[in-house]
Amino acid sequence: MRIRILVTGGTFDKEYDELTGRLFFKDTHVPEMLRRGRCLLDVTAETVMMVDSLDLDDEGRRQIVARAAGCAETAVVISHGTDTMVQTAHALAAAEIPGKTIVLTGAMVPYAFGSSDGLFNLGSALSFVQVLPPGVYVAMNGQQFRWDRVRKNTASGCFEAL
Amino acid sequence: MRIRILVTGGTFDKEYDELTGRLFFKDTHVPEMLRRGRCLLDVTAETVMMVDSLDLDDEGRRQIVARAAGCAETAVVISHGTDTMVQTAHALAAAEIPGKTIVLTGAMVPYAFGSSDGLFNLGSALSFVQVLPPGVYVAMNGQQFRWDRVRKNTASGCFEAL
Amino acid sequence: MRIRILVTGGTFDKEYDELTGRLFFKDTHVPEMLRRGRCLLDVTAETVMMVDSLDLDDEGRRQIVARAAGCAETAVVISHGTDTMVQTAHALAAAEIPGKTIVLTGAMVPYAFGSSDGLFNLGSALSFVQVLPPGVYVAMNGQQFRWDRVRKNTASGCFEAL
Amino acid sequence: MRIRILVTGGTFDKEYDELTGRLFFKDTHVPEMLRRGRCLLDVTAETVMMVDSLDLDDEGRRQIVARAAGCAETAVVISHGTDTMVQTAHALAAAEIPGKTIVLTGAMVPYAFGSSDGLFNLGSALSFVQVLPPGVYVAMNGQQFRWDRVRKNTASGCFEAL
Repeated sequence: MRIRILVTGGTFDKEYDELTGRLFFKDTHVPEMLRRGRCLLDVTAETVMMVDSLDLDDEGRRQIVARAAGCAETAVVISHGTDTMVQTAHALAAAEIPGKTIVLTGAMVPYAFGSSDGLFNLGSALSFVQVLPPGVYVAMNGQQFRWDRVRKNTASGCFEAL
Repeated sequence: MRIRILVTGGTFDKEYDELTGRLFFKDTHVPEMLRRGRCLLDVTAETVMMVDSLDLDDEGRRQIVARAAGCAETAVVISHGTDTMVQTAHALAAAEIPGKTIVLTGAMVPYAFGSSDGLFNLGSALSFVQVLPPGVYVAMNGQQFRWDRVRKNTASGCFEAL
Repeated sequence: MRIRILVTGGTFDKEYDELTGRLFFKDTHVPEMLRRGRCLLDVTAETVMMVDSLDLDDEGRRQIVARAAGCAETAVVISHGTDTMVQTAHALAAAEIPGKTIVLTGAMVPYAFGSSDGLFNLGSALSFVQVLPPGVYVAMNGQQFRWDRVRKNTASGCFEAL
Repeated sequence: MRIRILVTGGTFDKEYDELTGRLFFKDTHVPEMLRRGRCLLDVTAETVMMVDSLDLDDEGRRQIVARAAGCAETAVVISHGTDTMVQTAHALAAAEIPGKTIVLTGAMVPYAFGSSDGLFNLGSALSFVQVLPPGVYVAMNGQQFRWDRVRKNTASGCFEAL
């Protein structure tokens, strides 16, 4: 089984700019995370964009959907900011991509910082994508949700079932 | 779905003793790892033993099998040293525990050290255990293997399909 | 020799707020850093304020000077944001506090993030404060500068001699 | 001022071998530590040997003394295992190297593991070496000791004044 990881940015990949004291995007950490996880899956990681998901508009979502539909793999993991992850899941479901299992995941804390949940979530998403039937899912907090049965609780920062 | 994690030691939970310069076991890191992964699954972690899996004998394996069979949960993750993980998987399969999905996982580097694969593997094992049909599995390197279709390649340190 | 550490905030002590995605101050990390450095000096850490040094005004500087002058110790380390560290060093020098060695230090990356220079700088500042003659100094980048012979190069983020 | 760092191994530079589960030496971490500390001192790091200081014999100590005496710099930091650090300090003092400040330091936990005191100690040693008068010193636990006024307390792992 071949897996495609589509990188779109999000907290997952944010870094600290020591000159400005602000968070920014440079390169994705996904390849380093795969090495650290000693991942031996047949994975291709591809950076679609590097954005804060609050800045993601319809055109950006169209790009993500186009890559998820267009790539050769039937197992697709998408790293995504948590704020609008569910919205992008809806856009992917609306596109009715046949025969593909698509799992969105992200992080509450940047991987570059010591206490990130990113590595846990990546291990989780890569596992779910191998065994779940075709469809669009969100994998966060160790759980998986169908795209239409989940929301982010903005007060707690956690994803919960609808 | 309720999940039981049976902690048995292994590299996963080793720590560095700064007085002797040797690795040893103190408490398990699983609760801290679950917090860091912002895990919201209904998980109970239980320490069965804290041993290097090279030191695990038949009696030790009987204990692990007994807890996996005896606990109330039908989803069981076992943290285990990688050296004899496959052997314990065989012991679990031989016990023919009905209706339970049992996933063994571990780490190549202790979680207490910065570069561990443990968090990735825990995220992976907790995900597989939710969706795989009853049976005994090994989850390492992002992959899952049925107990009778896997071996550890001691030269590379990786698990591979038989 | 007794040493007083005056905590004033700065990048040193910033943390990541996973709900808002912004950096903020909670408690100082200095006690944890001293434990990690296995520091056995007779040190008392005291939080004077927790501010970004760009937000520090004359009244704030007066508070810092007052504590540096008023504490019983003759060796004083001040953790401080790097942006206006030199300005506070000038305020301390202007106060002409007799018989005290005062060393300001900080960090370019928060200690809570993996790649921080904070632990290196704290080890450096605590060492300089034990051996330098009375006066006001900045300790950054492994170096020490007298208060009137240093500036922060805002382009490189480094401190350099005047 | 130019500083020479002589790397001799010790806990400081130990790494975890994930195939054997044992600690071993590969390359020194000192250059990475200097980068992380944003160190701007004129430092040259040189690996003299990579050994556990318990394995260091008279011939090994002669090599260290020869490099400390022979290098062009008058400020020398030596990274060294803590177990026989004091013994090497005695050998250096016995050599009566004129006009040089020599500071030995080490770590209780390998730098490659998350919780190491190494970065703190390196910042400390590099600071002491700039300001202490010629002589041989041990810098550990934030403190500095003259070579003949210190011992390692093997029960606590700490260095203490004689």
